[in-house]
Amino acid sequence: MIDQTIIDKDNEARRAALAADYDALGASLDRRGIDIAAITAKVTAYGVAVPSWGVGTGGTRFARFPGAGEPRHIFDKLDDCGVIQQLGRATPSVSLHIPWDKEDPADLRAKAEEVGLTFDAMNSNTFQDQEGQAHSYKFGSLSHNDAATRAQAVEHNLECIEIGQAIGSRALTVWVGDGSNFPGQTNLTGQFERYLDAMRQIYAGLPDDWRLFSEHKMYEPAFYSTVVQDWGTNYLIAKELGEKAFCLVDLGHHAPNVNIEMIVARLIQFGKLGGFHFNDSKYGDDDLDTGSIDPFRLFLVFNELVAAESVEGFDPAHMLDQSHNVTDPIESLISSASEVRRAYAQALLVDRESLAGYQGDNDALMSAATLKAGFRTDVEPILAMARLGAGGAIDPIAAYRASGYRARVGEERPAVSGAGGGIV
Amino acid sequence: MIDQTIIDKDNEARRAALAADYDALGASLDRRGIDIAAITAKVTAYGVAVPSWGVGTGGTRFARFPGAGEPRHIFDKLDDCGVIQQLGRATPSVSLHIPWDKEDPADLRAKAEEVGLTFDAMNSNTFQDQEGQAHSYKFGSLSHNDAATRAQAVEHNLECIEIGQAIGSRALTVWVGDGSNFPGQTNLTGQFERYLDAMRQIYAGLPDDWRLFSEHKMYEPAFYSTVVQDWGTNYLIAKELGEKAFCLVDLGHHAPNVNIEMIVARLIQFGKLGGFHFNDSKYGDDDLDTGSIDPFRLFLVFNELVAAESVEGFDPAHMLDQSHNVTDPIESLISSASEVRRAYAQALLVDRESLAGYQGDNDALMSAATLKAGFRTDVEPILAMARLGAGGAIDPIAAYRASGYRARVGEERPAVSGAGGGIV
Amino acid sequence: MIDQTIIDKDNEARRAALAADYDALGASLDRRGIDIAAITAKVTAYGVAVPSWGVGTGGTRFARFPGAGEPRHIFDKLDDCGVIQQLGRATPSVSLHIPWDKEDPADLRAKAEEVGLTFDAMNSNTFQDQEGQAHSYKFGSLSHNDAATRAQAVEHNLECIEIGQAIGSRALTVWVGDGSNFPGQTNLTGQFERYLDAMRQIYAGLPDDWRLFSEHKMYEPAFYSTVVQDWGTNYLIAKELGEKAFCLVDLGHHAPNVNIEMIVARLIQFGKLGGFHFNDSKYGDDDLDTGSIDPFRLFLVFNELVAAESVEGFDPAHMLDQSHNVTDPIESLISSASEVRRAYAQALLVDRESLAGYQGDNDALMSAATLKAGFRTDVEPILAMARLGAGGAIDPIAAYRASGYRARVGEERPAVSGAGGGIV
Amino acid sequence: MIDQTIIDKDNEARRAALAADYDALGASLDRRGIDIAAITAKVTAYGVAVPSWGVGTGGTRFARFPGAGEPRHIFDKLDDCGVIQQLGRATPSVSLHIPWDKEDPADLRAKAEEVGLTFDAMNSNTFQDQEGQAHSYKFGSLSHNDAATRAQAVEHNLECIEIGQAIGSRALTVWVGDGSNFPGQTNLTGQFERYLDAMRQIYAGLPDDWRLFSEHKMYEPAFYSTVVQDWGTNYLIAKELGEKAFCLVDLGHHAPNVNIEMIVARLIQFGKLGGFHFNDSKYGDDDLDTGSIDPFRLFLVFNELVAAESVEGFDPAHMLDQSHNVTDPIESLISSASEVRRAYAQALLVDRESLAGYQGDNDALMSAATLKAGFRTDVEPILAMARLGAGGAIDPIAAYRASGYRARVGEERPAVSGAGGGIV
Repeated sequence: MIDQTIIDKDNEARRAALAADYDALGASLDRRGIDIAAITAKVTAYGVAVPSWGVGTGGTRFARFPGAGEPRHIFDKLDDCGVIQQLGRATPSVSLHIPWDKEDPADLRAKAEEVGLTFDAMNSNTFQDQEGQAHSYKFGSLSHNDAATRAQAVEHNLECIEIGQAIGSRALTVWVGDGSNFPGQTNLTGQFERYLDAMRQIYAGLPDDWRLFSEHKMYEPAFYSTVVQDWGTNYLIAKELGEKAFCLVDLGHHAPNVNIEMIVARLIQFGKLGGFHFNDSKYGDDDLDTGSIDPFRLFLVFNELVAAESVEGFDPAHMLDQSHNVTDPIESLISSASEVRRAYAQALLVDRESLAGYQGDNDALMSAATLKAGFRTDVEPILAMARLGAGGAIDPIAAYRASGYRARVGEERPAVSGAGGGIV
Repeated sequence: MIDQTIIDKDNEARRAALAADYDALGASLDRRGIDIAAITAKVTAYGVAVPSWGVGTGGTRFARFPGAGEPRHIFDKLDDCGVIQQLGRATPSVSLHIPWDKEDPADLRAKAEEVGLTFDAMNSNTFQDQEGQAHSYKFGSLSHNDAATRAQAVEHNLECIEIGQAIGSRALTVWVGDGSNFPGQTNLTGQFERYLDAMRQIYAGLPDDWRLFSEHKMYEPAFYSTVVQDWGTNYLIAKELGEKAFCLVDLGHHAPNVNIEMIVARLIQFGKLGGFHFNDSKYGDDDLDTGSIDPFRLFLVFNELVAAESVEGFDPAHMLDQSHNVTDPIESLISSASEVRRAYAQALLVDRESLAGYQGDNDALMSAATLKAGFRTDVEPILAMARLGAGGAIDPIAAYRASGYRARVGEERPAVSGAGGGIV
Repeated sequence: MIDQTIIDKDNEARRAALAADYDALGASLDRRGIDIAAITAKVTAYGVAVPSWGVGTGGTRFARFPGAGEPRHIFDKLDDCGVIQQLGRATPSVSLHIPWDKEDPADLRAKAEEVGLTFDAMNSNTFQDQEGQAHSYKFGSLSHNDAATRAQAVEHNLECIEIGQAIGSRALTVWVGDGSNFPGQTNLTGQFERYLDAMRQIYAGLPDDWRLFSEHKMYEPAFYSTVVQDWGTNYLIAKELGEKAFCLVDLGHHAPNVNIEMIVARLIQFGKLGGFHFNDSKYGDDDLDTGSIDPFRLFLVFNELVAAESVEGFDPAHMLDQSHNVTDPIESLISSASEVRRAYAQALLVDRESLAGYQGDNDALMSAATLKAGFRTDVEPILAMARLGAGGAIDPIAAYRASGYRARVGEERPAVSGAGGGIV
Repeated sequence: MIDQTIIDKDNEARRAALAADYDALGASLDRRGIDIAAITAKVTAYGVAVPSWGVGTGGTRFARFPGAGEPRHIFDKLDDCGVIQQLGRATPSVSLHIPWDKEDPADLRAKAEEVGLTFDAMNSNTFQDQEGQAHSYKFGSLSHNDAATRAQAVEHNLECIEIGQAIGSRALTVWVGDGSNFPGQTNLTGQFERYLDAMRQIYAGLPDDWRLFSEHKMYEPAFYSTVVQDWGTNYLIAKELGEKAFCLVDLGHHAPNVNIEMIVARLIQFGKLGGFHFNDSKYGDDDLDTGSIDPFRLFLVFNELVAAESVEGFDPAHMLDQSHNVTDPIESLISSASEVRRAYAQALLVDRESLAGYQGDNDALMSAATLKAGFRTDVEPILAMARLGAGGAIDPIAAYRASGYRARVGEERPAVSGAGGGIV
């Protein structure tokens, strides 16, 4: 963790400017009938989970270029996640990935407690083969032709639940890459039937207070068809399985030009929105930093979420899921969590009564302007004040760099070879 | 109609070559264990409906360039459709569009009988305002904010059913352009609720032996959101409405890169595939001639349909829906119907037993090759023989041109001004 | 025009709040080392042209739903454009479209002077047939197979230059829809050769102080191929023609996911960026209001423009080009011009020295953050102050609505029938 | 290599059926005025290069699932390539990738001669870091901010030329992944200037009888911008460099919906088409087997190539570039080479005189039908006869499986661990 005096010192230098900006914004919002303190309070209470794998440098099939101080195991990763939360105060929990993070649950709990974190949804992995595994997932996992392979994949998911129960998780996220690379390679219907059958077995093992999230994705690693290719299929899955099954939306998993906020609205309306994997993308599942490519799209998603806040039992899971190829992952996760909060804060500013009025009058221009007034507002002072109020840093990137954390772990953790990738 | 002697004469010149090609193909298929006569019989029995509006020249928002002899009304249109069927023998029915084709049902039936046609699904129109209409559809129809506008749209659909009953139709296709052009213009959820409510009223008026088809479309004429934007929403509609409600798939209404045959497979699997609007597209809802851009995609759709032929009660509706901007619409519809049959014939040739075997063995290469062996086969002799056997033309375009039909109606029907379009 | 006292009264009610917001922003920018007065001055000096056709309600091939007080001719249109400029002070010039706006040049100049406007680039039209035209453009214009048709299209463009010279224009914009709807319909190379040959004839008639802008578009109205399909082909044209030929970029004319700001950067680098047609789009050439769908993308384009401001002779033309289907076109054009200015103002705020430093250090996170700091800033007070300072309205939409202008012209100008479109 | 008696035996069983099919096709083509022997001769003479890396199993950033008998080094790879050529007779040359294939040139030549192959274009690699490399390519190579890194990348390319000269290659293909993952991360113009500067140094080292191919790609591994993002930029590069510089087109490197055959036509027209990387794709750079997803698109590309055959000096390079994730790479490369030949044969069948006539008459329907008549023809007998005539296998996949080659090398070459990938 970072020495608090470093954070305090950095905050001190920025406190006056922040106060001035915050007061000016407060006065301006007050003229719009909005209480800045109430917004700040909601933002402070909002958290988004960090994926354990996100603190390692990502890569592509062409190459991976590791940075200094790459985490060696889940305990290093939890250290890094602790720093992210210490500075940004927006990421109170971590989402584990099994088997990558498989360790003694007691040790995991102790470490999480030490760094001030809890555990979010569990993530299973049947898209890779592990050393010594009996059956290969080369041709699929939960939807594989072979019953033994499917059983192995089901068993792995049940184990994830078991581990999750031991560490206080309450949800399992299932993403599979099953699909095909050639028209004809698989029977599209038969493959989905096998998938549903396997998922029913996992669902049967789900504790009563757990939720099961299935995740759709248009393509990659399968390049002709993917068994859970879109929200339509994802909805069918959640519906087939039962009340504890929900759909997870990763912002980068859709076809070009798709209106994602409509998908979010439909899943909310039919009671099946489970949660999000936040990131941004320009082309495919690019896993770029949240809000870096199309911040207005992120705002439009949060516009649907804020509009649904009053829906009974509405409680989607929020998680970052990004690949940090050219940045320090800690910095990217701190700033991405802040971008998620930014969209949330902007959506909270929307005058929903006026908006509904304009919509009712078919006043397209004023409806759009009313919505955009939220987006247009620079809420950075609110985000900074929320961090500061919770003990974090006004400028968490600056404080992080001042701390020398990366250099320190760079010394402790052995350098990773530059080789890697090369799967063209 | 065209003088049969013209057709016969044209056929005579081509009969020997066709026989040679057909025999050679028969011998080759026989070596693959396929009986060409059985395939020809199935192709002969297969028909696809023609849309009444398809025989007029289409256009874009920029311009429309009419051809000679544009049909003036539904009776001219039925004449043209009669010629299409006379030559191609693949299009035994016509799909009407109300109010464009609204005439005395008895006259419609008489004319259809005269030209040897029956009536397929009825199509309502709430995407345009008609002269003297009480409420405008500028801001929507079935999902409009205003109850009176919705009621007017419902009423129109019920009238379509009424007309359809009088002429022997058995289905209503509902496509609406309702949506929005700005984020915020409409409440996405409220709009869909209103749509569902209106559709329930239409469904309540549906005769027991009718089917209701809802059609999804990603965009256009609405350019930010469309209320029935994809198959996921379309499925929800069919499910909400009941057993007589089904989803209609227009091949040009999807996001870029979407795997359409998977959508077809899913809708079949969950009992909600209602039928098709066939056309082809490279960019958006281009409404190009079927099979002109991506014939393999069309084949893959038919591969799913043939695989499902044995499913109890499986009987999707097949219709062409194209915009003929640069061709004689009669020629385009004849050749497009032939393309649909081509894909059907190729799909019938697939050795499904071998395919299932290779799929079960995860033999991706041979699975793909087995499927493609159907597509690769030049089935033109089968299509021509099916036409000839049913009284049509071996080369229907050549026979049509020899007939001078277009020049003849060009004289009878007044020329339409070159102006038009200009809605930039 | 609108009574100035109405504008003054509306401004009076908003003056104090604006002053407070402007001062607070000024103080905050001052802390970032930015002089708000300098930014406001640059914004005040920035203008974007309005297209004459933009003040009429747009539509799609399916329908057009006119509003009240549709302009009947170019003089009505100039009245509307005068109001847009009076209130927004961001649109000092109008771009004419021939033959739609063809009138006596002296009358056009007099009217423009009356409403305080000048004339921007001329726009030719060879994508429609006009009454009494000798040769049809159904199969192309500048690239048509037939030499007489090409000559007619060239002649029309030369006439546009002639009219433009008489009214003080200095540029000709050429957009053609020439292309094909079927693979094989046209010889792709031959068609482009004919296009180039025709453009050379137009270029030969260009006055020395004029510029020729060619515009690329991926598709529509042609749906398989378009002769000027992308910036690559557009660059070849400008290069072939000569020093006075440049490429015009319409933001909605690209393939999905394309990085438009890179295209802008490349054209600047190679001296061939002619200017812009601003609008926004989610799917295709949707012609939505500028900044309504992806405001960050617009900012990124302006980031390139501001970075190139110091390039010798760099002076691209800026024009709005939108289709207003569901709003009052006057309101959309006022607010869209404001969105263009917003992006410009935000781009002016970018700390380019810091940005270059971070880029040089491969500090991806801080580079991105530095760029986004400009976008994140709410520059509305600057935009409002620029309007106010130039004699316009702090809130131009409110002032416009208070003026009753639309109701007034609704009485003067005959209502247009609700019918239209219907080119499915 | 495979024992020729195995091939002969397999051929014997298929010879009679092939003769019957070939004769029937010959008769049918003769009725169309086409001499089948002439077509077969052209197909026989046509070859496409195999990439050395293509014989290893590919993968994604998620995982790689190796098969049995993975080649360990370039000599194993050349053995596999030899088998591909022995059976298919369509792939007489191999394209090397440095440093992966770096060995003593004399040994490379000897091995190639032994297996009956020659060497095609050289491929450099600056998208990965190699063990012991002085400067990392994490932030770019030829366009890197740092001069020393750029010099290292230039030097590597010059070394590729040197190796290539020693083994009889005549071309260098340069593909770089340089770009950025964030708006702002890089100065788009500066980056391209640095790229051009580095390429000029490579070009300066190019022997007089060599060609330099630059390859564009829309995205991946960079996910916001890529320095050579499309053919427009690629054309600028080839033009800037000089007469020996050409553009290479990989079929999977374009934006969704882009008309690739138009790009091919433009590059031919302006003398800058260097060659192809053949593969197929549904979503992005999927690197699927050629012709597996959209065979008509491949045909349309070959339609342009055949139309340009008579152009003086027209001699583009043809290479396969695929990732074989779920098949035996040898089988995929044999069948993909056959698909390339299939498209070539079909394009040769097009009646170009009739086509030009219909195009001149604006007869869109018959133009399209004339083109498609080539595609529709089942040319498999021609392909098989070409293989047989050159000493290969009628059914090369069957002969390959009968040979037991994979099992044999599976014993000789050590199994590769199932682990790998895992760069999420």
